[in-house]
Order: sequence, then C-alpha cells, then structure tokens
Amino acid sequence: MTANERECGARPGRGTLVIIGGHEAKKGNRDILRQVARLSGGDRLVIATVASHTREGYFESYQEGFSGMDVGELTELYVDERDEATDPKTLERLEGASGVFFSGGDQLRITSLIAQTPLEERIREIYDEGGVIAGTSAGASVMCETMMVTGRSEETYRVGELQMAPGLAFIRGVIIDQHFAERGRMGRLLGAVAQNPRVLGIGIDEDTAIVVRGDSFDVIGSGGVYVADGSAITHSNVAEARTGDTLSLHGVTLHVLSAGDRFDLQHRAPGRPSEEEETSGTKEKVAKST
Amino acid sequence: MTANERECGARPGRGTLVIIGGHEAKKGNRDILRQVARLSGGDRLVIATVASHTREGYFESYQEGFSGMDVGELTELYVDERDEATDPKTLERLEGASGVFFSGGDQLRITSLIAQTPLEERIREIYDEGGVIAGTSAGASVMCETMMVTGRSEETYRVGELQMAPGLAFIRGVIIDQHFAERGRMGRLLGAVAQNPRVLGIGIDEDTAIVVRGDSFDVIGSGGVYVADGSAITHSNVAEARTGDTLSLHGVTLHVLSAGDRFDLQHRAPGRPSEEEETSGTKEKVAKST
Repeated sequence: MTANERECGARPGRGTLVIIGGHEAKKGNRDILRQVARLSGGDRLVIATVASHTREGYFESYQEGFSGMDVGELTELYVDERDEATDPKTLERLEGASGVFFSGGDQLRITSLIAQTPLEERIREIYDEGGVIAGTSAGASVMCETMMVTGRSEETYRVGELQMAPGLAFIRGVIIDQHFAERGRMGRLLGAVAQNPRVLGIGIDEDTAIVVRGDSFDVIGSGGVYVADGSAITHSNVAEARTGDTLSLHGVTLHVLSAGDRFDLQHRAPGRPSEEEETSGTKEKVAKST
Repeated sequence: MTANERECGARPGRGTLVIIGGHEAKKGNRDILRQVARLSGGDRLVIATVASHTREGYFESYQEGFSGMDVGELTELYVDERDEATDPKTLERLEGASGVFFSGGDQLRITSLIAQTPLEERIREIYDEGGVIAGTSAGASVMCETMMVTGRSEETYRVGELQMAPGLAFIRGVIIDQHFAERGRMGRLLGAVAQNPRVLGIGIDEDTAIVVRGDSFDVIGSGGVYVADGSAITHSNVAEARTGDTLSLHGVTLHVLSAGDRFDLQHRAPGRPSEEEETSGTKEKVAKST
C-alpha cells in the first residue's frame, strides 16, 4: 500500500501532526509545546486562534507558553469572516511559516471559515513541505476526516445524540476526542466508533498529545490516550435502537497509552519505539528530516 | 465446574444480586426498585443504611421509592458500632426477611462494622435461602471479593493511586465501580483490572443495575454497563512504572451493555436472553424459583 492509498494515518506529505487533548502545560516542563517548537525548526510559527469566538488572550498565552524555546516568530492568525481567508493580507501572515498551531474553541468555526479557501491550501502546503500542524481541543478534533462536534460528556452514549461534521482531514480513518478522561468522554467516543468501526476512536487526555508521522503516532505529555478499535465488534444496537436508547456494543478492543508508547495506525497495534531510537534520538532526527 | 468451584459469578446459593450504579430512580418508572421488590417476593425487605455516616433521610427515600409496589414491610437496619451487629435485637430486624438493600455511603463502614458478625451471617442466609441482596453505589462496590475504596475519577489511572480492600464477596472474580460514566471512572476501573486481569472490571452507570444469578447477569435500568476484560492484555506498566506514572495497558476487551443485554461471567461473553425467555417471562419465573 502506498502513502496515497493509506486508509488510516496522517495525510500523505512530509509533515508531522501534534494532536493535543487540551490544556497543554504552558509553564514548567511544557513537553508538548517544546515538541511543537522543535518540529517547527526555528521558523515562523502561526498560532491560529480562529476556533475562538473572541480573540482575547489565546495568542498571548501561547507567547508565554513558547517563551524561552528555540522557536521562530509567533504570528497570530485570526479570521472572523470567510472572505478574510481569501484575502492576500491574511495569507501574508503565513509567509515563511513552518508550523501552524490551532488553539481551542469551536471546531465548526475552523471548518466553516477556512475550509476550501486559499488559507487552508497554504496550511496544507506547510504540512506537505515538512512543517508541523498542531491542534489542541477543538483544534485536535478538526484534524479528522469526520470530526466530533457535540455530544454529551459523562454519560453513556444514547442513540442519536452525537453530532459529527467533515473536518480538515489531516488524519484519516480516526475520530478524535479531547479532554478525554477529564470530561468522561468514553461514552461518546464509543458511540462514534459504533456508527462505523472503520474509524478508530482516539481519546486524548489534557496535557497529552499524539505526534503523528505517516501511519503511526507516539504519545507525549502527562495523561493517557485511549484507542478504541471496533474491528472485532460482534453486536451493536445503533441501527435498530430508538433514539435515546442506551448503547449496546460488544467486543471493542481498548488500549490505554501513555508517554513513550507508540501506535501503528495501519495495523491497529500498540507498541513502543525501539530502544535504539529512544537512545540515539533517531526519533527526533526522523521528525525533522521528513 | 460445580457451583462451589465457580471462579467468576455470584456466591453459590439460591439468591439473586441486584447491583446498582447509584441514583436509581425513586419516582416514575422505577425499573430497578420494582425488580428488587419482585425478587423479595412480598416478604420483609431490609434497607441497610449502614454505609451512611448519618442516618437521616435514606430510609425515608426508599419508603417513598418502594411505595405502591408489592413489597413486604420495609425495615431499616442501621448500626453505628460493631457490637450492635452482634446484638440479638439488631438480628430481630431481619426476621422473616427475603431481601436486604444496601444504600450508598462509605463501603468501609459496611465491611468494618458488619463483616464477620452474626448480622453478616444472617444476610448470607437470606441470600442462600433464595432472597435478594441489592446494593447501590457503596452498596454495589461492597459486593465484590476485593472492592474499590478510593481512586480518582475523571483522570487516567496513575500507578499507585487506587485503594482497594476486601469486600463482602457476594460476587467473585469481578471488581465493580459505580456512578460510572457520570463520574468518568474508566481510568480507575482499568487501573484495577491492570493490577490483576483475573478480575473482570464492571462499571455501572447511575439508574442502571446488573441482576446476577449464578454465573450470568442481566442489565436493567436506563444507563450503560461497561465490562473490561483483561484476558488478552499484551502489555501493562503497573509493575515497572514509578508511582504517579500514567497507565499504559494494551489489549483490553471492552463491552458496553444496556437494558436487555445479558453477560456470561464464566465465559466472559456478552449475549442477549433467548427470545423464548423474553416473551414467555421465564426469566422472572427462574428468578423467583432459584
């Protein structure tokens, strides 16, 4: 299978995705922001705060978060109307950039304002040229082909209670949820997987991220990453049950991953990076050279 | 395998367990309380409020909850010191009873006050004679051989962060958690299973119960029941990781069950009752005659 035929994994290209479950540390160790800085390689890093209904504070918090790191100029990208995403002046903000970081808010703002515009095209180019595309919270959900929009937390999924929409499709064959353990979102993730077990469910805790290259990812940060694989499901009631009925779903395979774990999206199999990679730092070199 | 050799399932005996995830409806449909009433068969039903640090209100809320149902006299059982559990006057409260219902509170109160006393012995007799033993919230946890006591909710399990203790052992080979989806407790349930995959993890939502007879259970109520089976786990970090490290656990099998689902504890397999049982009402008859 060539990269172009890939069913599950990052969009073909030379870039890296950093998909974060929200509330990444902006003080102290800052493993996640440090990884984004490293992957952007010292060139301009664009903080896309477009998911937010108000502009205030997001950009400044990332200026603080990235302070003292070997990162190039930080530039805010904010649009409030779709025509701004086609404005050459907006595109200028991405000149020379090697990374784009989508902050949190409403994933539908990202897709409805920038999808299918020259701005989105330019972001894809940055990725294709080997840059880093990062996203946290809403910025994480939006990475998928089909993204979660709304669904109840802290409840077992009830038939009909989840809204999904087409996302930016930087990663294929998965559906991502964020603030995962913190907001008790196992129910809605399983609800999504039940509807089509082709997609692998990935739930990412706060201050935790998956770093996706090609068809595998590594986990970084302090929390857990849950992978719900529906390949072996033997029974599901999502099609026959009435709206509001509680989910019945038999035979999900569940993995809990934490920092240092790797996951092979193509073979749906967890593992750990080889010792050689861990000790020689090859992982970083690969990340920067791809 | 005879009943006495059973590794996973209810304590051998003729009784039924109703294990509830907390907040069972006390108005409206009341499926769960109705099932407890039915199983107690019109004889005295003892409401054991011993888990509660204060006596106030619990018994009265169950008087209201069971009102209008075909249930015998409701009697409150409350002890505040261990010697009350050996007092013949306390035992009198259980005379002629065919059911005991443990309300919520602190599971350690139940075990530390009544375990290994004539009172506990009398409760086991009620079960052995075919009665119903029900428990909600703390009263659910306490049913296990090894019960959960404290552990953080809404967080992925961190090594060393879960406290367990010996329970009343009405059900073997499982560990039960309650208020499950509502309090985001998947993390701590998986933490318990990781420590010994011999035990099957069962997470029960609010207003939801498992009705256990022999080595299988049926789900009733409005929410979900999660069964985490660690038989096929390929990797776990609970033994090597440092205290506070985030769980890594590969290859759990997860089932989400809802009303109408049945689970075979012996074979760790979900299923549904046969149509014959569902239509003829055999299920109820079996429940009352065993």
